[in-house]
Amino acid sequence: MRSPEELRGLVEAYLADLDLCPDLGDLAEGVRYAFAAGGKRVRPVLCLATGEAVGAEPERVIPAAAALELVHAFSLVHDDLPALDNDDTRRGLPSVWARFGEGDAVLVGDALLAEAFRQALSYPTPAVARELAEATLGMIGGQHLDIHGQVEDLAALHRLKTGRLFAASVGCALGAAGVAVEEQDAWRAFGEEVGLLFQIVDDVLDEDGYVFLHGPEGARGLAAESAARAQARLEEISADTSVLAQLVSDLAVRTE
Amino acid sequence: MRSPEELRGLVEAYLADLDLCPDLGDLAEGVRYAFAAGGKRVRPVLCLATGEAVGAEPERVIPAAAALELVHAFSLVHDDLPALDNDDTRRGLPSVWARFGEGDAVLVGDALLAEAFRQALSYPTPAVARELAEATLGMIGGQHLDIHGQVEDLAALHRLKTGRLFAASVGCALGAAGVAVEEQDAWRAFGEEVGLLFQIVDDVLDEDGYVFLHGPEGARGLAAESAARAQARLEEISADTSVLAQLVSDLAVRTE
Repeated sequence: MRSPEELRGLVEAYLADLDLCPDLGDLAEGVRYAFAAGGKRVRPVLCLATGEAVGAEPERVIPAAAALELVHAFSLVHDDLPALDNDDTRRGLPSVWARFGEGDAVLVGDALLAEAFRQALSYPTPAVARELAEATLGMIGGQHLDIHGQVEDLAALHRLKTGRLFAASVGCALGAAGVAVEEQDAWRAFGEEVGLLFQIVDDVLDEDGYVFLHGPEGARGLAAESAARAQARLEEISADTSVLAQLVSDLAVRTE
Repeated sequence: MRSPEELRGLVEAYLADLDLCPDLGDLAEGVRYAFAAGGKRVRPVLCLATGEAVGAEPERVIPAAAALELVHAFSLVHDDLPALDNDDTRRGLPSVWARFGEGDAVLVGDALLAEAFRQALSYPTPAVARELAEATLGMIGGQHLDIHGQVEDLAALHRLKTGRLFAASVGCALGAAGVAVEEQDAWRAFGEEVGLLFQIVDDVLDEDGYVFLHGPEGARGLAAESAARAQARLEEISADTSVLAQLVSDLAVRTE
């Protein structure tokens, strides 16, 4: 079993060499800018670790993992736009619209989403791409709630905006590895829980969302409960889930 | 063989009843607005007519046909944005951003693209969705050229921005119908030609593009040559292509 750091190295190498559609022309520069600049690669690492736990080599799972990261990048590029969250920086660099202009940022986001499907469609079955399409629609619905929703929509917002792609990180690994649908339930419950955990910790670090509703102590307590549930889900699964257990522990105590 | 008008009726009925992902919530209103309001449905009708010519019932091909129309709608919604073409009307109605705001228009376009893939992924193989992903990337590259390119890029721009989705209208029908790859060449050449024809006539009607390069008479001449080549392509194919021949004739003389 590879460590999270080894898996992250595989993701970085794959993304650095990613073949983009030649038709994108000069737009490719903005597309690479959007996914090259760091980030924690949490979703693809979770995908690869799930794949290894069910016996699939990273070589088999990496297109699915890359697809998840590209969908994540797509959502950041569009969410950063002036008409949405209006963020001109991202990870210490100018956001895509601030660097390439608003028009190109719309197109870069579109291209990232289409490239994500191209990766997900490299498998002989449509399972991975279906998982990705459903998760993407959930994220879009979540972003819409984030703009227009009420505070009572917070749980639904998180489940959609963040939880869906985390759950899909597990689901895409199952699809890429060919795990039968009837054996996926415990894995999917784990994926949902990891998504919730990630979001609560995000809110603790950003001092919003769950902190706004439950206070900093309350939110930290919810994160600990979520981490414990995620670990319990893993224990229900008869596979070597040690790397996934480490990922959950890392997510629960992360500080950035 | 159903007439173009009958096929168009099937497209309208399917789109009117289209199940959108429930996670979209209130955003679904904007999504429906974007694809409900008319248009000629040329791409899905071309797809269904190609399907019938190769022996596939419209019931089998209609998800692919709808996917093409949704990708077309996605491209219009994003191209109309102030940061791109800045069009506040579309087919006599407020464009999506003018009606729902710029932020929601970005999300509506994103949702249309993801819903298109959901339709394309309803098949047991990934062939239709792969066709759609490649065409979408070509269109995005074409829109980028449209914004930043030079006049000498006009042919490439058209081939990408319009031609790709027309060629894919034929290609998606072949995928949905299960036509073997080695039997697709003549069909694909036909699809490319129809894309070119559509664009030249578009420029004649809009008095730009090919008219700018070749004058109104010159552009009309090019359209007639393209239509003749498309008909010749059809004659090379051993199938009942009478409805497709009628579609080509209609496209060559359209006035809107």
